Amino acid sequence: MALGGGHGLHASLSALRRLLDDLTVDELTAVVTVADNGGSSGRLRGEFGVLPPGDLRMALAALCGDDEWGDTWARVLQHRFTGDGEMRGHVVGNLLIVGLWDLLGDHVDALDWVGRLLGARGRVLPMALTPMDITAEVRGLVPGDPDALTSVRGQVEIATTEGVISSIALEPHSPPVSPAVVSAIDEADWVVLGPGSWFTSVLPHLLVPDLSAALASTRGRVVVVLNLAEQEGETGGFGPADHLAVLAEHAPALAIDTVLADRASVGADLSELEEMVAALGARLVLDEVAAEDGTARHDPEKLAAAYERIFRAG
Amino acid sequence: MALGGGHGLHASLSALRRLLDDLTVDELTAVVTVADNGGSSGRLRGEFGVLPPGDLRMALAALCGDDEWGDTWARVLQHRFTGDGEMRGHVVGNLLIVGLWDLLGDHVDALDWVGRLLGARGRVLPMALTPMDITAEVRGLVPGDPDALTSVRGQVEIATTEGVISSIALEPHSPPVSPAVVSAIDEADWVVLGPGSWFTSVLPHLLVPDLSAALASTRGRVVVVLNLAEQEGETGGFGPADHLAVLAEHAPALAIDTVLADRASVGADLSELEEMVAALGARLVLDEVAAEDGTARHDPEKLAAAYERIFRAG
Repeated sequence: MALGGGHGLHASLSALRRLLDDLTVDELTAVVTVADNGGSSGRLRGEFGVLPPGDLRMALAALCGDDEWGDTWARVLQHRFTGDGEMRGHVVGNLLIVGLWDLLGDHVDALDWVGRLLGARGRVLPMALTPMDITAEVRGLVPGDPDALTSVRGQVEIATTEGVISSIALEPHSPPVSPAVVSAIDEADWVVLGPGSWFTSVLPHLLVPDLSAALASTRGRVVVVLNLAEQEGETGGFGPADHLAVLAEHAPALAIDTVLADRASVGADLSELEEMVAALGARLVLDEVAAEDGTARHDPEKLAAAYERIFRAG
Repeated sequence: MALGGGHGLHASLSALRRLLDDLTVDELTAVVTVADNGGSSGRLRGEFGVLPPGDLRMALAALCGDDEWGDTWARVLQHRFTGDGEMRGHVVGNLLIVGLWDLLGDHVDALDWVGRLLGARGRVLPMALTPMDITAEVRGLVPGDPDALTSVRGQVEIATTEGVISSIALEPHSPPVSPAVVSAIDEADWVVLGPGSWFTSVLPHLLVPDLSAALASTRGRVVVVLNLAEQEGETGGFGPADHLAVLAEHAPALAIDTVLADRASVGADLSELEEMVAALGARLVLDEVAAEDGTARHDPEKLAAAYERIFRAG
């Protein structure tokens, strides 16, 4: 199973679905952050008080069936309206998901219907059953006092802060979690965390008490996938070891089995990263997983190959 | 096949799909008006310059598969957002159809995709490939001059006029028509026209030159289904014979085989209606086709039985 949100989770799921084809993986569940407050998702969340649908939609699209049916419906669901009118910026799949929520009144049931529509190769579940807000303690926003902490609230606001994020928290602190999420974690052989926007897509899962408890007790092994680069705003100035350090600070009870990093992205001096990984009791796997288009995104084929090596080595 | 729009076409299609089950009908095509300028359809038409999707969506929903899959997706597509926000009044299926049009760039192809999603028991096609406007010449809107004609433009405006509609016209006069519509008319055994809003859903088809020509040359036999009552605004004061009279005025070349009317709705004195039907060279069939809820809508079961009797009698 995979935990995350946004484009990082999309890449990870695009990789993992390939492993369903060659039977390395026999079941795939994605658990997705529900703290987005921007764009089409933010507008729908504000209008209807529902979960922000965008990251859920993107995860479902990543798992679409690989025939004309799945491909077409995935493209339809990912289609964003342009123009100058009231629909501008809205995404077809977001509207469909919110319509299903409105009609069926059950978040998980509705997402399963979209999964069936897409012929999805796995299941997509929300991290929590209520919309969440992320708050961050951010350093460097007070002129003349570089150590002062400022609270910043909202996924968009945090992702674009000009300060340095020290920690995050969730509101509500202890949201309801679908039993399906807890069972999926309990029964997983492998739990993949990341890549993705570190503070706003990856770490939030670790702050949900029911998820955190399930992760602490699962027999599944946890793979943390590091990003290929720092992300302007959210993780400006963060190296690979810093990513792991804030993860460990936010989830001291999490047992990490493997840290997967892109060989070319981690730099020549590995000592800091190796020390951090060792301190966490994990093993470091360096592989080639970057896309060749220079976008700092993972290549699904290469990521699939890396996952396969990790899973088969066991 | 059936021509019309709105709730009238929905009722007719709900009846005709039953005849697919007992093999009285082996293929079903609906051709739908595209002149709506109100509500969710009107907003989307105004924003994107596309066909108004609402009547097409409603026709597709009427043909949905009769399993849980078809039923659920039909309910989703028919779902209308409430609340106070920007989505208020929009219908999920309208947004999905417009998204498909935007993405695929082909009206008919996109509607076929929605039909496949619903497991639809027939095909739904638009009357024309460009959005249309209806204009009406209306009497009685000029104070003191009851015979003066006023031009009223727009489906909503015509349907709610306080005057008496004398005639309608379409803009553009000669819109492009999908070849699929022309073939469907050419190959039909039976062509069902009505029930529905007479001037804004039923008559418009007869004013499109390519449709009118196809209807004049088809070997299929035309059944005109009369409404159960006059419609406030559009046909206030119109009796059954008046409905046929304006139809004949707008389509002098149309050969009508059968006029189907509800026995209880046509009143005790049939002479005027019988004369009109005879003048058109048609036969009059009186049957029980009204719903029992007093809504002036047709009951799909009873309408199906009436169609079956007409089709089997041949």
